[in-house]
Amino acid sequence: MDLAINADDVRRAAERIRPLAQKTPVFTSAGFDTEAGSRVFFKCENLQRGGAFKIRGASNLILSLPEAVLARGVVAYSSGNHAQATAIAAKHVGAQATIVMPEDAPRSKMEATRARGARIVTYNRFTESREALAAAILKESGATLVPPFDHPMIMAGQGTAALELLEEVGQLDALITPVGGGGLLSGCATIAKAIHPAIRVFGAEPEGANDTFLSLKAGERVSVPHPDTIADGLRSPKPGELTFPVLQRLVERVVLVTDAEMRAAVKFMLLRLKILVEPSGASSVAAVLFHKLPPEIRSVGVVISGGNVDFEELIGY
Amino acid sequence: MDLAINADDVRRAAERIRPLAQKTPVFTSAGFDTEAGSRVFFKCENLQRGGAFKIRGASNLILSLPEAVLARGVVAYSSGNHAQATAIAAKHVGAQATIVMPEDAPRSKMEATRARGARIVTYNRFTESREALAAAILKESGATLVPPFDHPMIMAGQGTAALELLEEVGQLDALITPVGGGGLLSGCATIAKAIHPAIRVFGAEPEGANDTFLSLKAGERVSVPHPDTIADGLRSPKPGELTFPVLQRLVERVVLVTDAEMRAAVKFMLLRLKILVEPSGASSVAAVLFHKLPPEIRSVGVVISGGNVDFEELIGY
Repeated sequence: MDLAINADDVRRAAERIRPLAQKTPVFTSAGFDTEAGSRVFFKCENLQRGGAFKIRGASNLILSLPEAVLARGVVAYSSGNHAQATAIAAKHVGAQATIVMPEDAPRSKMEATRARGARIVTYNRFTESREALAAAILKESGATLVPPFDHPMIMAGQGTAALELLEEVGQLDALITPVGGGGLLSGCATIAKAIHPAIRVFGAEPEGANDTFLSLKAGERVSVPHPDTIADGLRSPKPGELTFPVLQRLVERVVLVTDAEMRAAVKFMLLRLKILVEPSGASSVAAVLFHKLPPEIRSVGVVISGGNVDFEELIGY
Repeated sequence: MDLAINADDVRRAAERIRPLAQKTPVFTSAGFDTEAGSRVFFKCENLQRGGAFKIRGASNLILSLPEAVLARGVVAYSSGNHAQATAIAAKHVGAQATIVMPEDAPRSKMEATRARGARIVTYNRFTESREALAAAILKESGATLVPPFDHPMIMAGQGTAALELLEEVGQLDALITPVGGGGLLSGCATIAKAIHPAIRVFGAEPEGANDTFLSLKAGERVSVPHPDTIADGLRSPKPGELTFPVLQRLVERVVLVTDAEMRAAVKFMLLRLKILVEPSGASSVAAVLFHKLPPEIRSVGVVISGGNVDFEELIGY
């Protein structure tokens, strides 16, 4: 079966998103390397525009749409980083973004999204379906849906994080990224394997949201109906239809991390590297810090996916 | 009167410290610029080795010492970033560092210093004089004192932060750094004025430790016997004998910031730029965020001096 994207899609995405996504820095830390027992290169998407890698995929899709399509607007359903990214990219091209959010989403996230010029439509998480609501908006407005992960343009856009990392640091034994729906991991695996076929690619998933871990074991997409983890960006219940075959083909293994390990990784990155990483973004960091990768791996690229944490949440660690 | 250092001293320091100090990144933030009303370029010394700019001065002095002198060791009295920096630089050249610290210094700082291979000598802050203790150690061992700010090699070393910043971003209307004893500000002012004579140089000082502010007003060095501020790195009671004449000649004004303003700046940098800044390091940030500089300034370089905060302290904000 053909996969949804190839390395050229990622390379084209890198060109396309240049006006919107930043080339984020790569950090290293001798102290972290000592703890981890390998050389670690952090791709800091927490320092990305909007505070997460999501701008890469959202802008790759939105910047590829014809003007007449953009004129009818774009829609995303998310209470998190993907909503911000969609709002930023839409604003950049002058399109109206509509974000469907649960009515009990954190006020700070709603305000940040509104400040980007997006229209917010809220729903009751317990009595309404966001998919039905989004479908109604799409039908009525003729707007385009910007899905959070299961779309070739989204997957290719997210892969540009790994492209930049490998262009900067050269060959690595391994690469690891967080896994939610698999958009970031599928895009990164695609380009990494094309540049360095011997690179070993891993995903990091919370124990309480281990749908991709279970799906890879089962050989088919398996649902975890009620994900339970502090990593709010990784609570998608099931890998994507398009992302999953890419992960099956290119990813060696998904390793699991606990909430406590992610909290410890957040604190390490904050106090030692002086950067703020959100729990979801720290899943890949935790995997390396707690020695979940094969011990023969001497150098590893770690994608830190985001840094959007509320202060009130952080002080609970 | 001749000043203690000139621009060539800073340029030579930049060469000398290259093996030890990192070229730290310069961050910008559209969100911060909007709040501040000017274009702001953050020189991120919180991302420096040891978590603060102090490695620049300490390594400039230590790397200039002959081997025979280094063999007798180096001594610093500090419970903070300068102790770390002295320990790191001493270890690099294989010299024994002795750090004189109050016996009630935070355990984390003692352990971090010891982990760098330094010997720690403690004293009782209420009954003993650290200067007398250090003098006894120096006399007995023949070691060299690495003073925290009032030394030409220290001042020149600290100035390399501004040299790197201006080389990277080009001409700026203004430059601002935190002021404790004046080592960082005097070094940065020296090189900034040499590169761009029209640049306006400012210092940021806590209201509760406003010795440099008062000294500049008085035209002579004035003491604030009991500095009271959360900015633990800026509690020196009096500007230096060597630093003060430089500040008098080259600094337009020292602006004052409150503890609350520094806390707000720490939070802004953490939640929006995703980097951890310590209160002392955020004094310069707070000055710009709270519009303490003349409004006609359109572009400003802000030196963030450090990022060493205990988690327990941070969550109190």
